[in-house]
Amino acid sequence: MPEIEVSRPILEANQRIAQGNRRKFQEAGVKVLNLISSPGAGKTTLLEQTLSRVAAELAVGVVEGDIQTTEDAQRVAACGVRAVQIETKGACHLDGQMISQVLAAFELDKLDLLIVENVGNLVCPVEFDLGEDMKVAVLSVTEGDDKPSKYPQLFQEAGVLIVNKIDLLPYIDCDLERIHQTCRRLNPSQKIFDLSCRSGEGLEDWVAWLKAWTRS
Amino acid sequence: MPEIEVSRPILEANQRIAQGNRRKFQEAGVKVLNLISSPGAGKTTLLEQTLSRVAAELAVGVVEGDIQTTEDAQRVAACGVRAVQIETKGACHLDGQMISQVLAAFELDKLDLLIVENVGNLVCPVEFDLGEDMKVAVLSVTEGDDKPSKYPQLFQEAGVLIVNKIDLLPYIDCDLERIHQTCRRLNPSQKIFDLSCRSGEGLEDWVAWLKAWTRS
Repeated sequence: MPEIEVSRPILEANQRIAQGNRRKFQEAGVKVLNLISSPGAGKTTLLEQTLSRVAAELAVGVVEGDIQTTEDAQRVAACGVRAVQIETKGACHLDGQMISQVLAAFELDKLDLLIVENVGNLVCPVEFDLGEDMKVAVLSVTEGDDKPSKYPQLFQEAGVLIVNKIDLLPYIDCDLERIHQTCRRLNPSQKIFDLSCRSGEGLEDWVAWLKAWTRS
Repeated sequence: MPEIEVSRPILEANQRIAQGNRRKFQEAGVKVLNLISSPGAGKTTLLEQTLSRVAAELAVGVVEGDIQTTEDAQRVAACGVRAVQIETKGACHLDGQMISQVLAAFELDKLDLLIVENVGNLVCPVEFDLGEDMKVAVLSVTEGDDKPSKYPQLFQEAGVLIVNKIDLLPYIDCDLERIHQTCRRLNPSQKIFDLSCRSGEGLEDWVAWLKAWTRS
């Protein structure tokens, strides 16, 4: 069988670079989140909604990972924060080196929070440490309540789970409680926020947590 | 930068195995589809809805690819067709070898159609030929109308695009015409079906096409 898993030397090399990033973040006093989800779960919209609510109190920078196009960075920059795009040119995830290469674009000392939006993919980004403090999983209810059990690694490792698009619950077959139960089993200390970036429901709790965590 | 793209020897080895699969399929006179989408776009539900409509006329087998769990194979087997599960144990896509290893579980000579449901991932499965006749992309409107331009390779290579969950269009911000335009630009000969597996709208056109294509 051809080698299909990421080989150990690649992951070890990544880990060394990620640790270097982590040291830089700690020296600069900036907290770092790594946002991971399927394509279309709403990461960029969540960023837009979040940035508009925290920008007055926190200095935030954003790294946008996309396989192609710079659309997302433009959407985020329109919120008035510094946004740097990484086009991965086909690669299915960000890695420590890609992050390392764009850090010079930020004045890290002046930031409170750096949010990295990873490539839309529930699998590969989880393997690659970027030097972040915490992974945040975003799952939209339209993806179905079976996703945490089918793609467990992300939901196990994420310190926060955002369940998005709850405004659509009346129109679909999704058992929100099943999502909660599976994720509590995978990671009992995970913080879960159910919200809708479209209606705004639930956003305040997430934003309050984010402000407190960033200052902690 | 660590090697992040799939290396050429791996892809070449895969290609040789996939060509072997393809020869077997052709000798047995069975048509093969490779279903690719994000997690939660509705591949399994599409299979359920499709199988119930073609089972009386076509002999169909299904290969279910999942990182973990055998839930999907059980759902498909409940439709009365032979379904074989491949648990990839962490790998983010199926490859030619995995398919080759399960073919003995089918009486290929007696099948008209074999449908492979790949791991939910818009990126990595596209790189790995399985020996299929055609890739079918499934995109749900809830993922957003920017996905074909952000993840172009699948939409370029897929002979058929199924745009699923159109019953949710009244409740979301998704421009169906933008999806069509991007995909027509990426692949002018692509056949596009807009449908809802939940309401049933549009399913008949897809099923009619599938029956005719299988017999062609």
